[in-house]
Amino acid sequence: MKRILVTGAGGFIGRASIGPLLSRGFEVHAVARTPVPDHDARAVWHHADLLAPGAPARLVDEVRPSHLLHFAWYAVPGKYWTASENVAWVAASDALARAFEHAGGERFVGAGTCAEYAPSDADCDERETPLAPATLYGTSKHAVYQSVSARAAGRFSFAWGRIFFLYGPHEDPSRLVPGVIQALLDGREALCTAGTQLRDFLHVEDVADAFAALVDERVEGAVNIASGRRVRIADVVSSIARQLGAADRVRLGARPMPPGERPAITASIARLRDEVGWPGGRDLDRGLAETITWWRAKTPQRHNAATPNERPSTGTPKTSR
Amino acid sequence: MKRILVTGAGGFIGRASIGPLLSRGFEVHAVARTPVPDHDARAVWHHADLLAPGAPARLVDEVRPSHLLHFAWYAVPGKYWTASENVAWVAASDALARAFEHAGGERFVGAGTCAEYAPSDADCDERETPLAPATLYGTSKHAVYQSVSARAAGRFSFAWGRIFFLYGPHEDPSRLVPGVIQALLDGREALCTAGTQLRDFLHVEDVADAFAALVDERVEGAVNIASGRRVRIADVVSSIARQLGAADRVRLGARPMPPGERPAITASIARLRDEVGWPGGRDLDRGLAETITWWRAKTPQRHNAATPNERPSTGTPKTSR
Repeated sequence: MKRILVTGAGGFIGRASIGPLLSRGFEVHAVARTPVPDHDARAVWHHADLLAPGAPARLVDEVRPSHLLHFAWYAVPGKYWTASENVAWVAASDALARAFEHAGGERFVGAGTCAEYAPSDADCDERETPLAPATLYGTSKHAVYQSVSARAAGRFSFAWGRIFFLYGPHEDPSRLVPGVIQALLDGREALCTAGTQLRDFLHVEDVADAFAALVDERVEGAVNIASGRRVRIADVVSSIARQLGAADRVRLGARPMPPGERPAITASIARLRDEVGWPGGRDLDRGLAETITWWRAKTPQRHNAATPNERPSTGTPKTSR
Repeated sequence: MKRILVTGAGGFIGRASIGPLLSRGFEVHAVARTPVPDHDARAVWHHADLLAPGAPARLVDEVRPSHLLHFAWYAVPGKYWTASENVAWVAASDALARAFEHAGGERFVGAGTCAEYAPSDADCDERETPLAPATLYGTSKHAVYQSVSARAAGRFSFAWGRIFFLYGPHEDPSRLVPGVIQALLDGREALCTAGTQLRDFLHVEDVADAFAALVDERVEGAVNIASGRRVRIADVVSSIARQLGAADRVRLGARPMPPGERPAITASIARLRDEVGWPGGRDLDRGLAETITWWRAKTPQRHNAATPNERPSTGTPKTSR
């Protein structure tokens, strides 16, 4: 009997993980702080604020999971890099791992980040690339990686999926892909940086599927969760625009490059492919097409197309992670 | 009126900081978890477990300090690199900074570590050397640096003293300097590594004096707390042995180099010297002489000198930080 507890189950990745976990035969217990609209009723839902003292232990004692997939974290765009909530989540994550150990859990998988790696023009490699988080978010995630690694040693199995860039349904609308889609759907211009940055993008449902594969295997330690493909931001924007027939409304170079923007943040996926055996996800054009369809269904029809010089309402699309 | 709260005031550095702070005109409030033997009665002593929920806020509200010097942390030799207490101290340190901000505090100084820096054969420089903590201890300290930096911005003044290697009265006897002193005082051999590692050693009373200078100035950000002198471990051991007339009982190379031991961990002290204006501390030979005197007074007279082939009882003297 494989019983899994998924934290952050109402979040961007968490909600997408429930289907793949059910397909793999897990009994899925999903926890979110508040009730989740359109939640997947095939999971058993729990509601808890894991930052409340004692809450992680109470939840683990109630569910008694054999597996744990820990996505919950503070994720408000623009704020999560430096927010003190990162510190609270380090402590809560440690409490969760401690409770899991005490309950005799078998395998714990957490969500790490490419922001743990030092800047690198080459693909980030789990065993080769130095770790040098430059932000409180990256440092805090890395502290969880180190603390749960130390706790796990010989007592439970532990893996850590390092997430790169993702997109898809339910993404925060202030971020790059939804920002560009909505601007172009609204008849506005999409004002972008030059878009020369190389990134690794993976559809959120593929990210979730890769995590489901990872938690269902016995691979230990850090594993990049990514596509293994280097894509320019400009190519992501152009693909969206082409599919919407709106290439003339994309303004690459209209925004300055953010300070400290790294030229490349891309991933080696040898561990994910060869050790976890994950077959890979959809290609970018198809993933963007599905995402456009989702946003189109969600966006109410406008009575009037916007005039060309209307300001976009989406702020600066965020590409950093 | 300068009123300072010193956490970890019963610890190795904290207890040495009270005199220098009083000399600078601070009203000193010292907090320790339990009563401290031989405590300096010129300070106002408080007892609190800062890891208990709400304890940092209660203490700060009671003392209402204008300045805060935060030394408290988990420091058990051999365990502190990976202990989950590091995570608890990240959260407690953040709670302390939050309470300090809410109470209208003016200046917060925390204790960082050379373990925040990436490996470097050159002297670590606060503005040049990359930050890449490789241990949970280093990552956790660095998370506090980042979180308090973000919290302080524009609201209170903040500095972060990065400590290198230190020695002196009250050091844990399992560490390098006390281990060698006690072995030689006991008539035993001092079994050491080859001792080729370059380190920066500063007497604990000078470390404490430098922190008192730092908290009394307005320098912002990270400042190395060190001597600025590169010394081989072998030279530290030889100085002790020479002063004890026991050079024949030092066995350099008798222990293997610990795995991952770095060839050099040394500091640039330009900021401490030029911006803080700290004049520097005693030289190593004098500091070791004082330390030998302290340990000699503490060590009971033996009835019999140990035989030369007796095993030392001090375990592996630790030099890592």
